[in-house]
Amino acid sequence: MMKIAALRAPREFEVLDAPMPEIQPDEVLVRVAACGVCTSELDQWQGKSSGLSYPHFPGHEVSGVVIEVGKEVHGFAPGDRVAVWVTNHGFAEYVAVKAEYCFPAGDVPLDLALAEPLACAVNAVELANLSLSDDVVIIGAGFMGNLVQKLVQLQGPRHVIVADTRPDALERAKKMGATRVVDVRNESLPEVVKEMTGGQGADVSFEATGAQTPLTLMGDVTRMSGKVVIVGFHQGGMRELPLAYWNWMAFQIINAHFREIPIIMHGMRTGMRLLTSGRLSLDDLVTHRYHLNEINTAFQTACDKPEGFVKSTIVMES
Amino acid sequence: MMKIAALRAPREFEVLDAPMPEIQPDEVLVRVAACGVCTSELDQWQGKSSGLSYPHFPGHEVSGVVIEVGKEVHGFAPGDRVAVWVTNHGFAEYVAVKAEYCFPAGDVPLDLALAEPLACAVNAVELANLSLSDDVVIIGAGFMGNLVQKLVQLQGPRHVIVADTRPDALERAKKMGATRVVDVRNESLPEVVKEMTGGQGADVSFEATGAQTPLTLMGDVTRMSGKVVIVGFHQGGMRELPLAYWNWMAFQIINAHFREIPIIMHGMRTGMRLLTSGRLSLDDLVTHRYHLNEINTAFQTACDKPEGFVKSTIVMES
Amino acid sequence: MMKIAALRAPREFEVLDAPMPEIQPDEVLVRVAACGVCTSELDQWQGKSSGLSYPHFPGHEVSGVVIEVGKEVHGFAPGDRVAVWVTNHGFAEYVAVKAEYCFPAGDVPLDLALAEPLACAVNAVELANLSLSDDVVIIGAGFMGNLVQKLVQLQGPRHVIVADTRPDALERAKKMGATRVVDVRNESLPEVVKEMTGGQGADVSFEATGAQTPLTLMGDVTRMSGKVVIVGFHQGGMRELPLAYWNWMAFQIINAHFREIPIIMHGMRTGMRLLTSGRLSLDDLVTHRYHLNEINTAFQTACDKPEGFVKSTIVMES
Amino acid sequence: MMKIAALRAPREFEVLDAPMPEIQPDEVLVRVAACGVCTSELDQWQGKSSGLSYPHFPGHEVSGVVIEVGKEVHGFAPGDRVAVWVTNHGFAEYVAVKAEYCFPAGDVPLDLALAEPLACAVNAVELANLSLSDDVVIIGAGFMGNLVQKLVQLQGPRHVIVADTRPDALERAKKMGATRVVDVRNESLPEVVKEMTGGQGADVSFEATGAQTPLTLMGDVTRMSGKVVIVGFHQGGMRELPLAYWNWMAFQIINAHFREIPIIMHGMRTGMRLLTSGRLSLDDLVTHRYHLNEINTAFQTACDKPEGFVKSTIVMES
Repeated sequence: MMKIAALRAPREFEVLDAPMPEIQPDEVLVRVAACGVCTSELDQWQGKSSGLSYPHFPGHEVSGVVIEVGKEVHGFAPGDRVAVWVTNHGFAEYVAVKAEYCFPAGDVPLDLALAEPLACAVNAVELANLSLSDDVVIIGAGFMGNLVQKLVQLQGPRHVIVADTRPDALERAKKMGATRVVDVRNESLPEVVKEMTGGQGADVSFEATGAQTPLTLMGDVTRMSGKVVIVGFHQGGMRELPLAYWNWMAFQIINAHFREIPIIMHGMRTGMRLLTSGRLSLDDLVTHRYHLNEINTAFQTACDKPEGFVKSTIVMES
Repeated sequence: MMKIAALRAPREFEVLDAPMPEIQPDEVLVRVAACGVCTSELDQWQGKSSGLSYPHFPGHEVSGVVIEVGKEVHGFAPGDRVAVWVTNHGFAEYVAVKAEYCFPAGDVPLDLALAEPLACAVNAVELANLSLSDDVVIIGAGFMGNLVQKLVQLQGPRHVIVADTRPDALERAKKMGATRVVDVRNESLPEVVKEMTGGQGADVSFEATGAQTPLTLMGDVTRMSGKVVIVGFHQGGMRELPLAYWNWMAFQIINAHFREIPIIMHGMRTGMRLLTSGRLSLDDLVTHRYHLNEINTAFQTACDKPEGFVKSTIVMES
Repeated sequence: MMKIAALRAPREFEVLDAPMPEIQPDEVLVRVAACGVCTSELDQWQGKSSGLSYPHFPGHEVSGVVIEVGKEVHGFAPGDRVAVWVTNHGFAEYVAVKAEYCFPAGDVPLDLALAEPLACAVNAVELANLSLSDDVVIIGAGFMGNLVQKLVQLQGPRHVIVADTRPDALERAKKMGATRVVDVRNESLPEVVKEMTGGQGADVSFEATGAQTPLTLMGDVTRMSGKVVIVGFHQGGMRELPLAYWNWMAFQIINAHFREIPIIMHGMRTGMRLLTSGRLSLDDLVTHRYHLNEINTAFQTACDKPEGFVKSTIVMES
Repeated sequence: MMKIAALRAPREFEVLDAPMPEIQPDEVLVRVAACGVCTSELDQWQGKSSGLSYPHFPGHEVSGVVIEVGKEVHGFAPGDRVAVWVTNHGFAEYVAVKAEYCFPAGDVPLDLALAEPLACAVNAVELANLSLSDDVVIIGAGFMGNLVQKLVQLQGPRHVIVADTRPDALERAKKMGATRVVDVRNESLPEVVKEMTGGQGADVSFEATGAQTPLTLMGDVTRMSGKVVIVGFHQGGMRELPLAYWNWMAFQIINAHFREIPIIMHGMRTGMRLLTSGRLSLDDLVTHRYHLNEINTAFQTACDKPEGFVKSTIVMES
């Protein structure tokens, strides 16, 4: 038997005993070390998701250690440290997962081996296909915006301008290497961008908020024929665009969302190569750690986003 | 002296005498054979364009014969038949134009050598970067939609599905080679596309109307990770998009608009290569021809769009 | 029991009785209608391949009718006409094959549903990423060169210039739509290309022979920054290149060879979409048909390449 | 009058007095601060270039300060520090150059503003279109190899493996950030690459020597469907390639050479953006500085390549 967190009602995770998962011939059994709390799970926890049936078993940002391998599995052995891709049941002591969805974690601390959200950011940035010395604007300096910023900075940009409304987020972005941070409550982002790019506008801009106002702002900071990359998830109704102007500016609009498994795997592989080789580290982004029996607190904190909060994770090992 | 049409007031072209244009060392003098009437000029003629000062000299879809070449010009000689790029003053007997903006017309009838609008369509289709056997939807079967259709059909698509509300436009699209035409007043385009693509949706869809309803429709006919190409000019206020869904579907949104001169030249060169080699013909698209002194009628007809109308042109030669 | 052709010694196929193949849950059983003879199999038949162990069971260009489906198979049912990808054992009455390696053949005659070689040509041409109105040179007008030509012509080229040394091959290329054919024994290909391209050279050139002389010729017919696509298989030692010149000309050299299964499947899917929609037909390329018990004659003919020969296939059904 | 270095015979530069260059309306007059010695000029100096007529005026890696601007020039003013593109006459106190060939040098020391060779390296690396976490091999750790290495490292690679035969070059590559350096006299590069890439081979390999042996080696260190980028200039006869194997491996072979002026300008602009923003510095690469009257020594040193030598430049200002 093992422990697993089940959401039984809004805001009510309960830690249950459940049978150990059994593995198929192409799967491995992983003892979970950590499982990140994803923003997309907060609505479920708060009871805002329609059509959710209880008990519900979220958790998909898993890392851990291989305990057992199926008879058809090559390339993994018990004791291997891995980041894995599962779609649920991740807030548990053990998961069974296809070997092809596992990636070596090398010496990366397992609570920092957040391969799944990193894969999203990798794929978004690769889709933008940056060129050397591009000027880049990132609107939204939360966890996803931070990941995008780190990956953009790995690709030889000239200026990286980060905009947000939270002073602590902007301070973190600055510390992470932004050329310039802009508190849009106090400064005009278009004016800053115009000044820093010789009046031209950004080559590429990323929107990582999911809200209307920043979306509209993208059109005012991007150069003609530049790229507008939508990373945020725009829930809550229609979005308005001044399409006559956006069309006249010949923007390439990239929806940085991915659902094909091979693409997700590509992003996870790339992200883990960057982490394991030390080119990238997430140690300044995982700010809050909780034990499995504190999972309701972990979710509450992720909803509250106290100052300094970026990402919380459930740490399974004692 | 030569004749030139000047717009002196809304709906009032007057044909004036004007001095012959003088050429610079890098220019050629072209005796105009024909100059197409562009949809973008209709608002000006109708008095709907703000900020227009009279007299106004439109006309930018010019073809003709080289009469004289500047002393720095290589590659062109008097007598050469050419399609040229000018930005105005085209409804005239002569234009002076840089030699690098001229393209050989070969044996193409000059009233069919519509290089400038063809360049727009070429660049739109190239931006879409079609793959062999793509399923393509084109919404809007006017002149631009027709050009896009012809170019798409040159690139090895599987299905080409054309939607419009005008029976004569759909009949023409069918005759031009559409796999299937859909009168959206009577049929559901999404259902037709779904059926013809095995439930998947189009690989690429082109919107060539500039209106909200067809724009919205694009999202319902395009496959996940497919391309949505906006060719129409979306004037008249904001456009609404269900961005949460479009983002979830990972559409690549391409604004097929171009303002850089090298790109326009690329499109003109490509278009004229297709016309002069016989791969492409526009003889079914130029439906109405007028003499210079009938120019007000030509514009009125282009506004009225009578049944069977696609494109009108001013033919300068007697 | 079923019939299958086994190569028991050089030039000695024998038709044997063998047990019917059994299918796995993800496989289908296909009654073979036809299996093409591939050039790569001729060396084996002639005893020129080192390391071949007998009996050997070639045959990988299979089409037929689904007879039985495994319990995990969706999307196929008995009676479906399909083109399939197998790697051997294709000269037989039945093959077992994964359902995901099967593609609907629609109404295409099964002896013309040559999906596997078509996939090679599709992938080669897609890798070349042609632009509208490109000038294209194809050296080698055998079966692969013909497939490349047909696919190039589907993509809106300006000139398609085909070179070979066999009058019947050139005549066929001309009939298939080449703008110009060149017998390199009598004419200078570089001079013809120069004249037809205004002195510039071809945008893309394909080499489909596998020999040194045509390879060298590629550099003399391609424009600066143009694409040199190597389709032929260059066996028999090193090849010499004037790399200083090729580098100075900034050629992009594309090795059009593919071994990843997803890419092969992509090519098969695309090819079958073109065949089933009628955009493409191979009926002028399959010139020789033989029954299974005539398989040695089929191979001998493919080696001899008599006048008018392009491709031979083994037709299984009576 | 001004000073300019003229090559009057092999190994004999003479510093002459010459009239000040006069500028055209679209040009600027630049007081030269430094002009780098390019490897391509060494053959000329040594008398190995055929067809050279004396006096010859080399020098094309120029930086300096704007002294005067033509009347049509916008965007530059006297006093502006710039890197410029000229094709010759650069070892002089002044050059006249089109304003569009000038790029702001910001605060970069002018002897380190080597925009022209940097443009070559930028364009080579951009053509390779690296992906995040690529494993990269660079053969040849001279000046061009070093520039490529610096630019590759700006783009988020996983491993950067540099091979050469000179211990000082390898030490420098290591100091510049190579993951691993390989002295090919003592170690097997293919074995090192195999080990570091999990047996797969490099995603991208750059050849920066221009010699046969390293060229051949590229095929042994690159993964299937990987990119082989030829940066070196392969003079001195034909090159041999095992094309059967390279074709089977589906290598994409990129000739990283450029002659179109817009592409050169793109590379210069990108390079200068990287230098002026501090993302890139060449201060460890310019190892030897000489005054104009020491120009023969500068060239002799560049031929001798003493230990520690990377690049020499002529510094014009006192």
